[in-house]
Amino acid sequence: MRATTIHAAGDIRVEEVPDPVIKKPTDAIVKVTAGCICGSDLWPYRGENPIRSGATIGHECIGIVEEVGSEVRDFKAGDYVVVPFCHCDNTCANCQAGAQSACVNLGMTASGQAEYARVNQADGSLVATGGTPPDDLLASVLALTDVMPTGWHAAVCAGVRKGGTAVVVGDGAVGLCGVLAASVMGAEKIIAMSRHESRQEIARAFGATHVVAARGKDGIAEVREITDGIGVDAALECVGTDEAMKTAIGVTRPGGGVGFVGVPHGVELPIRTLFERNIGLRGGIAPVRRYLPELLALVQDRTIDPGKVFDLTLPLEEAPEGYRAMDERRAIKVMLQP
Amino acid sequence: MRATTIHAAGDIRVEEVPDPVIKKPTDAIVKVTAGCICGSDLWPYRGENPIRSGATIGHECIGIVEEVGSEVRDFKAGDYVVVPFCHCDNTCANCQAGAQSACVNLGMTASGQAEYARVNQADGSLVATGGTPPDDLLASVLALTDVMPTGWHAAVCAGVRKGGTAVVVGDGAVGLCGVLAASVMGAEKIIAMSRHESRQEIARAFGATHVVAARGKDGIAEVREITDGIGVDAALECVGTDEAMKTAIGVTRPGGGVGFVGVPHGVELPIRTLFERNIGLRGGIAPVRRYLPELLALVQDRTIDPGKVFDLTLPLEEAPEGYRAMDERRAIKVMLQP
Repeated sequence: MRATTIHAAGDIRVEEVPDPVIKKPTDAIVKVTAGCICGSDLWPYRGENPIRSGATIGHECIGIVEEVGSEVRDFKAGDYVVVPFCHCDNTCANCQAGAQSACVNLGMTASGQAEYARVNQADGSLVATGGTPPDDLLASVLALTDVMPTGWHAAVCAGVRKGGTAVVVGDGAVGLCGVLAASVMGAEKIIAMSRHESRQEIARAFGATHVVAARGKDGIAEVREITDGIGVDAALECVGTDEAMKTAIGVTRPGGGVGFVGVPHGVELPIRTLFERNIGLRGGIAPVRRYLPELLALVQDRTIDPGKVFDLTLPLEEAPEGYRAMDERRAIKVMLQP
Repeated sequence: MRATTIHAAGDIRVEEVPDPVIKKPTDAIVKVTAGCICGSDLWPYRGENPIRSGATIGHECIGIVEEVGSEVRDFKAGDYVVVPFCHCDNTCANCQAGAQSACVNLGMTASGQAEYARVNQADGSLVATGGTPPDDLLASVLALTDVMPTGWHAAVCAGVRKGGTAVVVGDGAVGLCGVLAASVMGAEKIIAMSRHESRQEIARAFGATHVVAARGKDGIAEVREITDGIGVDAALECVGTDEAMKTAIGVTRPGGGVGFVGVPHGVELPIRTLFERNIGLRGGIAPVRRYLPELLALVQDRTIDPGKVFDLTLPLEEAPEGYRAMDERRAIKVMLQP
């Protein structure tokens, strides 16, 4: 099949690789109808994560079941499905506790930017859409494989509540989905920290009541001013850098919470500050499957439209240009169509 | 008045110092009937915190109101009161959000091991006992000034829930109160990590269902075995060292929570582990006033008896011996009677 591969920092190719095959009786093979590039794919692209040269890359896709293993009961060839980027059995103790991203049978989509992808634990992981999504919902359904549930997880972890205040640090696709999540959860003031006009626009469309363009100390001061000098109840850290974490903690009120979903790179947690201000911290890899049914329903009844984060759609063969566009922040999020 | 003072690491004295006086109209002076030594007093005693030579020490006491400032409305001379170690107005935005330990008018008891103590924000801070406590409740009422609400805060922050599992790291007075808190909150399995027989005994009396004496990796392995290999829902970190924090995180299941109330000394948080296992972290200085009414009621109806943590009572003049006994772990917690 044709698949996107990474060979070194900055070296993305689309080339012929072996088709994925059923390896375990709980696996399924999905023919990808749409995949996309994740902000976290930029870590190896920028040389900040180790790379296995020639490996396929991409963990977000939707598509049609092509083949299932002998133990798969709930899906069959022809079913249109959402593939959560982390696969789970949805039955183990961790899954039952809502930590599907720590399932004892955890798997990951390894070729989401390709023609086919293998799904481990198909019954536990996949969610059927009930047929081919209408054209105008396709992007939003694709956003359910990672960014929307990840933004949602940030909001859950931060403790966003009806009538409360929230700030979102990071204006990437996940951060924007965090704004949308906080809005659905009923936060009264939602402050998006963003310097880019096109992203600010989407943040506003997603429910941001305020936009703060300043960063660091100035940004923190502005958020405090908006919140009567107190800080926010809930901060969503959607970047993963030390600066973003420090900002999130800096804007949070005593007794408030920080939800973090940016993969931490070089983050040092200021435990004394957390202690002195009783600020809670919770986050991690989103348990996508846990949120998927609820979020799919919100997409299908058109309550939310996370697909707005896709501002560039390319044929699969142009994946290298998609990476460049995201790396240079010319695009928020890129859809790839095989 | 006679008061306990600290002059250098290991140098505790009882000497004559000026009586505290009303400085602000919201202050009150309390004649101390009983005070005590806190595990956190051992930090300066051991030279691990800076010391102002000759300063009074001690932040836990109960007693009788001696005098009130002109703006104090709810208390008068003669009222028997519990003095939370951190004083608050109980009306500001932080107090209303349950973060009384970050009150905008925060104060601290500065001479709890003495004959008199000043309380800032008397109306917001003090809780009346409704008369002199019966002799057999005195120690438990005294425990409400800090250790019991702090153990309770650890349990709240860790997310202890009915039917869940909890581990308590630290067998000091706060840790033991954490066991008691987890028990009141209905945890089904409560694992106390303790190597000292007398402390294990109190832990069991407070509701511990299991005791683990091993530390580090072995201790973590034992806790995992008790919890079917999964780890606990809630871990209470009641020490403040890096080892204790690593143990607390190590025994917590994916999606579980760590509540930390030990004043952090040299703790480095492993953010990648927290991220990969979606472990929440919340803690800090206990908002004592928030919990006081509920805990006082539990003491007065004899549901809880946190006073069991006092295993040595000395006259105030023998405070130096009290410090030695706690430092050498000959005593769990020492009551001082002026």
